[in-house]
Amino acid sequence: MDPKDILEKYKNGEIDLTEALEHFPDRGIEEMGFATIDTDRQRRTGLPEIIYASGKTVEQVKLIAERMHQKGIDVLATRVTFEMAEAVKTVIPGAEYNEMAKTIAYKKSNEVNSKGYIAVVAAGTSDMPVAEEAAVTARFLGNQVETIYDVGVAGIHRLFNKLEIIRNARVIIVVAGMEGALSSVVGGLVDKPVIGVPTSIGYGANFQGLAALLAMLNSCASGISVVNIDNGFGAACQASLINKL
Amino acid sequence: MDPKDILEKYKNGEIDLTEALEHFPDRGIEEMGFATIDTDRQRRTGLPEIIYASGKTVEQVKLIAERMHQKGIDVLATRVTFEMAEAVKTVIPGAEYNEMAKTIAYKKSNEVNSKGYIAVVAAGTSDMPVAEEAAVTARFLGNQVETIYDVGVAGIHRLFNKLEIIRNARVIIVVAGMEGALSSVVGGLVDKPVIGVPTSIGYGANFQGLAALLAMLNSCASGISVVNIDNGFGAACQASLINKL
Amino acid sequence: MDPKDILEKYKNGEIDLTEALEHFPDRGIEEMGFATIDTDRQRRTGLPEIIYASGKTVEQVKLIAERMHQKGIDVLATRVTFEMAEAVKTVIPGAEYNEMAKTIAYKKSNEVNSKGYIAVVAAGTSDMPVAEEAAVTARFLGNQVETIYDVGVAGIHRLFNKLEIIRNARVIIVVAGMEGALSSVVGGLVDKPVIGVPTSIGYGANFQGLAALLAMLNSCASGISVVNIDNGFGAACQASLINKL
Amino acid sequence: MDPKDILEKYKNGEIDLTEALEHFPDRGIEEMGFATIDTDRQRRTGLPEIIYASGKTVEQVKLIAERMHQKGIDVLATRVTFEMAEAVKTVIPGAEYNEMAKTIAYKKSNEVNSKGYIAVVAAGTSDMPVAEEAAVTARFLGNQVETIYDVGVAGIHRLFNKLEIIRNARVIIVVAGMEGALSSVVGGLVDKPVIGVPTSIGYGANFQGLAALLAMLNSCASGISVVNIDNGFGAACQASLINKL
Amino acid sequence: MDPKDILEKYKNGEIDLTEALEHFPDRGIEEMGFATIDTDRQRRTGLPEIIYASGKTVEQVKLIAERMHQKGIDVLATRVTFEMAEAVKTVIPGAEYNEMAKTIAYKKSNEVNSKGYIAVVAAGTSDMPVAEEAAVTARFLGNQVETIYDVGVAGIHRLFNKLEIIRNARVIIVVAGMEGALSSVVGGLVDKPVIGVPTSIGYGANFQGLAALLAMLNSCASGISVVNIDNGFGAACQASLINKL
Amino acid sequence: MDPKDILEKYKNGEIDLTEALEHFPDRGIEEMGFATIDTDRQRRTGLPEIIYASGKTVEQVKLIAERMHQKGIDVLATRVTFEMAEAVKTVIPGAEYNEMAKTIAYKKSNEVNSKGYIAVVAAGTSDMPVAEEAAVTARFLGNQVETIYDVGVAGIHRLFNKLEIIRNARVIIVVAGMEGALSSVVGGLVDKPVIGVPTSIGYGANFQGLAALLAMLNSCASGISVVNIDNGFGAACQASLINKL
Amino acid sequence: MDPKDILEKYKNGEIDLTEALEHFPDRGIEEMGFATIDTDRQRRTGLPEIIYASGKTVEQVKLIAERMHQKGIDVLATRVTFEMAEAVKTVIPGAEYNEMAKTIAYKKSNEVNSKGYIAVVAAGTSDMPVAEEAAVTARFLGNQVETIYDVGVAGIHRLFNKLEIIRNARVIIVVAGMEGALSSVVGGLVDKPVIGVPTSIGYGANFQGLAALLAMLNSCASGISVVNIDNGFGAACQASLINKL
Amino acid sequence: MDPKDILEKYKNGEIDLTEALEHFPDRGIEEMGFATIDTDRQRRTGLPEIIYASGKTVEQVKLIAERMHQKGIDVLATRVTFEMAEAVKTVIPGAEYNEMAKTIAYKKSNEVNSKGYIAVVAAGTSDMPVAEEAAVTARFLGNQVETIYDVGVAGIHRLFNKLEIIRNARVIIVVAGMEGALSSVVGGLVDKPVIGVPTSIGYGANFQGLAALLAMLNSCASGISVVNIDNGFGAACQASLINKL
Repeated sequence: MDPKDILEKYKNGEIDLTEALEHFPDRGIEEMGFATIDTDRQRRTGLPEIIYASGKTVEQVKLIAERMHQKGIDVLATRVTFEMAEAVKTVIPGAEYNEMAKTIAYKKSNEVNSKGYIAVVAAGTSDMPVAEEAAVTARFLGNQVETIYDVGVAGIHRLFNKLEIIRNARVIIVVAGMEGALSSVVGGLVDKPVIGVPTSIGYGANFQGLAALLAMLNSCASGISVVNIDNGFGAACQASLINKL
Repeated sequence: MDPKDILEKYKNGEIDLTEALEHFPDRGIEEMGFATIDTDRQRRTGLPEIIYASGKTVEQVKLIAERMHQKGIDVLATRVTFEMAEAVKTVIPGAEYNEMAKTIAYKKSNEVNSKGYIAVVAAGTSDMPVAEEAAVTARFLGNQVETIYDVGVAGIHRLFNKLEIIRNARVIIVVAGMEGALSSVVGGLVDKPVIGVPTSIGYGANFQGLAALLAMLNSCASGISVVNIDNGFGAACQASLINKL
Repeated sequence: MDPKDILEKYKNGEIDLTEALEHFPDRGIEEMGFATIDTDRQRRTGLPEIIYASGKTVEQVKLIAERMHQKGIDVLATRVTFEMAEAVKTVIPGAEYNEMAKTIAYKKSNEVNSKGYIAVVAAGTSDMPVAEEAAVTARFLGNQVETIYDVGVAGIHRLFNKLEIIRNARVIIVVAGMEGALSSVVGGLVDKPVIGVPTSIGYGANFQGLAALLAMLNSCASGISVVNIDNGFGAACQASLINKL
Repeated sequence: MDPKDILEKYKNGEIDLTEALEHFPDRGIEEMGFATIDTDRQRRTGLPEIIYASGKTVEQVKLIAERMHQKGIDVLATRVTFEMAEAVKTVIPGAEYNEMAKTIAYKKSNEVNSKGYIAVVAAGTSDMPVAEEAAVTARFLGNQVETIYDVGVAGIHRLFNKLEIIRNARVIIVVAGMEGALSSVVGGLVDKPVIGVPTSIGYGANFQGLAALLAMLNSCASGISVVNIDNGFGAACQASLINKL
Repeated sequence: MDPKDILEKYKNGEIDLTEALEHFPDRGIEEMGFATIDTDRQRRTGLPEIIYASGKTVEQVKLIAERMHQKGIDVLATRVTFEMAEAVKTVIPGAEYNEMAKTIAYKKSNEVNSKGYIAVVAAGTSDMPVAEEAAVTARFLGNQVETIYDVGVAGIHRLFNKLEIIRNARVIIVVAGMEGALSSVVGGLVDKPVIGVPTSIGYGANFQGLAALLAMLNSCASGISVVNIDNGFGAACQASLINKL
Repeated sequence: MDPKDILEKYKNGEIDLTEALEHFPDRGIEEMGFATIDTDRQRRTGLPEIIYASGKTVEQVKLIAERMHQKGIDVLATRVTFEMAEAVKTVIPGAEYNEMAKTIAYKKSNEVNSKGYIAVVAAGTSDMPVAEEAAVTARFLGNQVETIYDVGVAGIHRLFNKLEIIRNARVIIVVAGMEGALSSVVGGLVDKPVIGVPTSIGYGANFQGLAALLAMLNSCASGISVVNIDNGFGAACQASLINKL
Repeated sequence: MDPKDILEKYKNGEIDLTEALEHFPDRGIEEMGFATIDTDRQRRTGLPEIIYASGKTVEQVKLIAERMHQKGIDVLATRVTFEMAEAVKTVIPGAEYNEMAKTIAYKKSNEVNSKGYIAVVAAGTSDMPVAEEAAVTARFLGNQVETIYDVGVAGIHRLFNKLEIIRNARVIIVVAGMEGALSSVVGGLVDKPVIGVPTSIGYGANFQGLAALLAMLNSCASGISVVNIDNGFGAACQASLINKL
Repeated sequence: MDPKDILEKYKNGEIDLTEALEHFPDRGIEEMGFATIDTDRQRRTGLPEIIYASGKTVEQVKLIAERMHQKGIDVLATRVTFEMAEAVKTVIPGAEYNEMAKTIAYKKSNEVNSKGYIAVVAAGTSDMPVAEEAAVTARFLGNQVETIYDVGVAGIHRLFNKLEIIRNARVIIVVAGMEGALSSVVGGLVDKPVIGVPTSIGYGANFQGLAALLAMLNSCASGISVVNIDNGFGAACQASLINKL
C-alpha cells in the first residue's frame, strides 16, 4: 500500500491506527537479522543507540559496532570483555578501550556541549568500575564530568572536604555499595538532583547490591532517584538529559 | 566554648573536625523534643522540610504543622488521614486537604517559579492517588504541572494521542503499577528525563509493587530513574529540582 | 495539521514516526478525565475493555460502567465489592452480580460463538472464587464452559473420574493453590493447551500463592503456561483467544 | 494376577483403584534403570518425550538418545553441551546440533503439519539463545515458524515495522529480558494468544530474570500467559498444542 | 463401556491406561458439586479426609461436615472460626470445638490404637495454638500424646528437666517460632524421629515464620524433617503414620 | 534417683551426660502448665525473664505477671496491648503502662547500677515507639539513659548538634527506619559500640524494615552490630550487658 | 573440682546447673583443635557422627576420617570431592568412593539391622545424585533400600507401574526437583510416612530448588515432611530412625 | 577563605554550616586519587582504617598498604587473595599473611591493651575461616583472644565442656552457619554480650547464610546482636570497642 492510501483508509475508518502503522515504510532502522539498529534514537530520545555487550557473542558485538561506524554513528559499547574490545578495534582502529569501565568507544569529536558539569561521587575504591562506566558514558554524551572517589560516610569529613565541587555540579551521580548511605547524606546537603547508583560491592546480606538498592530507594532525603544496581551507564544517560535542559 | 576558640583549637590541631562540630551553635533547627525541625532545609537543598505523617500520632502531626506555620514556613504533609487533616485545620485554618492525594497543604503564595512544566503520566485510574500526590507536591514546590491519566500500554494509541503534551514537558513523571511497562515506552519516545514511580496496584505476583519496581529499574530505555513504590512525593521533589535548573 | 500534511512531512523526512503519531486524530478512545476507555480494544485484540475495579473508587467504577453501557459496549467488571455492584446496578439495571466470582456483568446477548468448550478444573473448594472468575469471564467472552471442582492430587482417582470431560475440552484452565501439583498431573494426561492459575490458598511457606506459582512455572509437563496468582480473569482471556482459533 | 482377575476384584470391591493400578502390565514405558522413557507421551499429550540434558551426564544423554532412536522415536535434547552433542552424534550420525539454541535433534521427516505459523518475537539480540530454543523446538514439533528479533520497546517503531507478520501468526511467543515490557505491548496490538518467555538477560535488580517474569505475569494486556525464565522449549510446546487446534 | 470391555481394549492396545481410567466406575468419591469428598482416603493413606476450613464459606464447611457425618466418617476440621464451629454443631451436636487449636471434631470412639506416645514439645507459650492443633489432630488419629510447653533454648535447663518424657516418646513434634533452635537441640539429644513445626511467632526479620522454617531445614542435627509454617496438623499426620509402624 | 547415684553412675560410665541431666532436680523453674518461668535467668545471664506478650492471651499475660510478682521478681512485659495492661494492673496495682513503648513494668527499686549512660538516638519521630521500648527496657535493667530524637541524615547538622551527648555515652543505640543510614554516620563519628535497631517505618521497597535492616548489616562503619527489626527491647538488653562491664 | 564436690555444691544451691556442667569431665568428645568429634552421638541419637566435607579443607577431611577410623568408628563423609576421597583412601585403604553420590564410606560390617526397607523414589534422572546420597547413607545406617528412578508425574503411569514396591516400604523418600509434585502424588497413594527431598534441578524461577521446596512444604497430601534442598543425607537419617522403630 | 573569615561569616549568618564545612582545611585525609585514606579514624572511632581488599585490584591494595605503612599506620587488609598478599609483602616485608583468615597484617607492636579476653566460639570446622578473620582482627586491635571451635548444638555436651572459658570472657563472638542455633544457646548461658556472626556454610535453603542470619536476628535469648554474614571482621571491631570500655 502507498502511504497516501494508508492515510485515506485510516481517515475513512477502514483501517485503524495499528493497521496503518504496519504499512508505514521503515525509517530509522538498520536491519542486521540478529539485530535491528535504531538509527533514529539520538534524534528522538537525545541519546544514541549504545551497544550493551553482555549476552552477545564477540562476533555480534563486532558486527554491530562496524555497521554503526559505517553509518557514521558514534560507537559506545558497555560491559565489553577484552576479547570483544580487540575484535572491535579490528574494524574501528581508533576505538578506545577503558579497562576499568569495561567500555569501548569511538567518537568523531570530543566537543563538550553541556552547560555545567556532572559530578560522579563514589563511596569506595571498589565502586570505581561502576563510577567509571558512568563517567565514560557521560563524557561520550558530550558532558563535562568531575569525579570524586572514596568519600564514604565512615569518614564523613572526606566528603565535606569535597563539598564545594559537588555543590557546584548541575547533576550529581552518587555511586555506593554496602549500605548505600552516601546518597542520603549528599542528598541532604545539595540543592541539585541526585541520581543514586547502588553497586554490588559487599557480601553476605548485601545480596549483590540489594542492600544499597533498597537503602537508596528509601532515602530520607527527598530529591533522589535511583537506577539499577551497577548501572553507571543508565545514571549517566539520565544525568546527561538533565544537564542539557 | 566561643566560636573563635573552636576555630583556633581546630587550626592548632587540638581538636578535630567532629569535635569542632559539636561546639558549633545550632542554627536551622527548631527543637520540639519528639521532633527536630530542619528550618534550613529549603535554603540548603532547594526543598523545604515536609511532614511525612505516617507513623506519627495525630497530635504530633498537628503540633509540627502548627510550629512550622508559626515560624512562617509553608506546610505540606503527606500520607495524612482525614483525622489528621481535621486536626491540622484547627491550627492552620486555611490548610487544604486533598482526599485522593492524602495531603494537607498551606502555602502563602501560589506563584509558579519554574520555566516549563512537569508532566505526570499515569497508566491506570487506580494509579491516581500516587499520581495526585506527585502533582500536589510539584505544585506546592512552585511548578506548573500537566496530568495525563489512564494511558497504559494495553491500548498504546491512547498514549500516542497525548504524546505532544508529554514531549513538551521539561521532566516527565511516569506512574504505573502492574508490570510498569509505560515508563520504558515513554522513555523510548522522548528526549527529556523520565522519573518512574512504581505503584502497588496489582495483586498476586505483583508483590505490592515489586513487579513494577523491578521492571522500571531494568528498563531497556536509557534515560530513566526510579523512586520508591508509591512515592509520588519523592518523584515530584526530584522533578522540581530538575525543572528549576 | 491535516492528515495529508502529516503523511507528506513524514514521507519527506521532515518529521519522524512518533511525531507523525502525535498528530493523528484519536479514534477508539473515550475520554473521561480519570479514565481513557479503549473502545477499539475488542476489534484490535479480540478482547473488550474490561473494568478492573480494585483500587478504583465506587464512583469511578459506576461512571466507567455507565459510559461503556451508553456507548453500547458490553460491561464486565472484576474484583468488585458488593457496594460497587449495587452502584453499577443503579445505572445498568440488568447487570448481574456474582458474589463468589466478585464480578458484575451486563451482556446484550448470551450467544456462544466458540467451537468447543473450555474446561475449568479446580483442585479444592477453597479455590472456587478464582475458578468462578475464570468461568464467568470465559462465558462473557462467548465461550461454552465446563467446571470440575475439588479434584486435587491428594485423591487422584477423583481426577481420573472426570478425565473424559477434561480431555474433550479445547483448552483447559487448571486452578490450584497450595503446591499447585494438579497442573502438572493434568498436563501429563491431555493433548490440549493447559493454562495454570495458581491461587493464594494456603498458609505459611505458601507465601500468598508463591508456592503454587513457582510450581506451575517449573512444571515437568511441557504444554503448560501460567498466569498471575488468583488471575482467573487473565486465564479466561487467553483461553478464549485460543478457543476461537 | 491376570488382568481379568484385577478387574473382577476391583468390581467386587476387594481391591481399590490404586491397588488395581499396581497390577496393570506396563505399556508405554522403556526401562533403562537410571531412566524410564515415556514412549506413550506423544499419543497421550500431543508432545513426544524430549530429553532435558541439564543435570544428566554425557553418558546418560547419549544412552537415552540412542535408545529412543532405536525405538524409532524422533529425538530432541535441549540444554546440551557441545560435548553431549558430539556423544549423541556417535550413535545418531544424522543428528543436528544448534549451537546457539543448545539443542541436538534428529527427525525422520521435516514435514510441517500445522495450519498457520508461530511467530517468535525477541526483544534483544542477547535474547536469541532462548528464542532459538523456542524456534528449534516448534519446528521439531511440526510447526512453521517466523522469527522477528531485536524489536524491543526502546525503539517501538522497530516493532510496528514487523506488526503485519506478527498479527498474521496463529500464536505468538514473545521472548524478552530486562523489564519484559514487549509482551504487554504486543499483547495490546494483536488478537491471538501471546506466550511470554522472560529471559535472564539483565543484571542487578533483574535478579536473573525475575524482573521480566514478574512483569509478564502482571501484564496489563489480558491475553498473555507466561512460562519459566529462559524456557523457550516450554513456550514452543504450548504454542504447538495451540497451533494444532 | 462395561469394565470387561475396558480391560479387553486395554489388553489389545486399543486404549491406553489413562483412557481406561476414565471409564472406571467411581468409588471412594462423594460428589457435592463444590466438593468431592475422598471417602477412600483412610483406607488408602492411613489418614482420613480432614476438612481444611480456611478459604471455605461457613455454609460449605457445615455441609461437608454434615455429609461426612451422614456417611459415618469421623469428622475433624481445622482452622475453623467460632462461627463455623457453631454451624457444624447444628448438624453434629456432639462435635467438640477447641478454641485454642481452632478445630472442631467428632469421633465415634476415643480408643487409642498406637503403641507408644507422641511428644509435642513447644518452645514458648505463644506457640501453643499450633502445638494444640498438632495434639488435637494426633489424638483424633488414635494416638496417645504428651505435651511439654515453654521449654525454649533461652533457658535450656527447662528442657533438660523434661528430657526423660521426651526421650521415651516414639516420635517427637517440636513446635517453635522465632529462631526455631529448639528442634536442633532436641534432635541432638534423642534417638527418635523429630518433626519440626516452625511457627509464625516473632516479628520483623522473622518474616512470618520464615526464620524458624529456614533454621529447621538447615538443622545441624541429622534426624529432623520439617512441615509448613504453623502446620501442626501436618506434623501430627506424619507422626501418626510413624507411630503406627 | 538420688543425686549421688546419678553422679556415681555418670562417673562409672553407666549413664551419659544427657541421661544424668534428666534426673537432676529442677531449680530455677516455675511451672505453670502453659508457661515455664525461668526464675534463674537474672543470675545466669544478667537479664531477668521478661514477658513477650505478643501471641499470648490477655489471661496468660496476667497470670505470668502475677506469678512472677508473687515470687518477688521484677516484672516487665513488652508488646502489651492496653487491654493486657489493664489486666496486669488488677494483679500488680503499682505497674506502670507506657503507651508509646507498649510496655508495662513493675520494679521494686529504681536504683541505677550502671557506670555511665546509654544513648538512644532515633532518626525520626515515627521511630519513637521502638526507641521508647529500648529506653524503658534499659532503665528497667538499671541503666541511666539519654534520648536524642529526630536527627536523621537528611539534616545532618541536627546530629552534629547533639554529638557531644552521644560521644559521652558508654553504648549507643541507633534507631532508624527508611534507609537506616544514621547508624553508619554515627558509627563513623564515635569510639563506642553502636547497636543498630532497624525499624519498619517506611513503605514500598522498605518491605517492613528490610531496607533498614540490610543497610545496617552492611554498614561501612566497623563497630556496629544489629538486632531484629523494631527490636528496641533486644538492643537495650545487649546495651545493658555492655554498660555493666 | 571433684565430681562429688560439684554435686554437693549444686545440691546446696552454691552453684547452678550450668556451672555444674562446666566442671563435668568430658566424655564422648575427641578433641582435634579444629574439630571436636562427638564420639557419643551414635549411642545418644541413633545416628553416628558423619563428616560433612563441604567447606573443609582436604587435609581436615582426611585427618577427621583417620581419627574416627583409629577410634573404631565407621566413617561416612558426604559432599566429598574426588581429591578428598583420594586423600581419605591413603589413611583408610578400604574406603569406598561413590562418584555420583559424592560420598566416601568405610564400614566394618554390612549387616542390615532394620525390619523392612526404605524406598527411594526419584522423579528424574537428573535427581539421581541426591537420591544416591540418600540410598548410600541409608545403607550405611544399616537399612535395606529399594530405588525407583525417573517416575515423575509428567508420565504418571510410570509411577503406577512401581506402586507395589513403593507401598510395601516402611518409609518412602521422594526426591524431586522442578515443581516437586511427585511427593504429593505419592503421599496420596500410600499409608506410610513420606519424606520429601526437593532438589535444585531446574532453572529460572526454580531458584535453585526453592520451587520444589515450597511445593513440598505445601503439599495437599497430609503425611509428608520435608528436608533441606538436595539433602538426601538428612532424609536418609530420619528414614533410618523411623525404620528402626 | 581564611578560617577566621569562615567563622565570622558563619556567625553573621552569611553562610550556613555546610558551606562553612566546605572551606575547612582538610586534616585526617591522605589523598591517593582512587582512594582517600582516613588517617584520623583511629583517634575518632577507636578503630583504625582497615583495607577491605575485595573488589580492589592487586595494585590498589598494594599502593594503599604501602602509603599507610609510610605514614606509620599499622596495616590490616581483609579478604586478600594470595596474589595480593605477595604484592603487599614486596612493599611491607614484615607483613604476615594468614591463609585461612585471608588477611595480611603488619603491626609495630603486639602489645595487648585490653582488660580481659574475647572468646571466639565457632559451631563447626567449616566456619573456621570466618572465626579466624575475627580472631586475627581482634588481636590486631590489641585484644587477647581465646578460640573454641566445633562445639555446635548437635552435640551440646561439647559446648558445656568449654563453658567456663566462654563465661569468663568479657565479650563473646559466636560464629555459626546452617541454622545458627549456637548463638541462642550460648546467649542463654552467659551474662556477657554475645555478638553473632552468621556464616554462609550450608546449602539449599540456607541461601548463603540467610538461614543463620535470620535465626540470630530472631534469637529468643535477649543479649545478642548480629553482624553481616561471614563478617568476622566487623564482629571483632565491635567486640574490641566493648572490651576496651
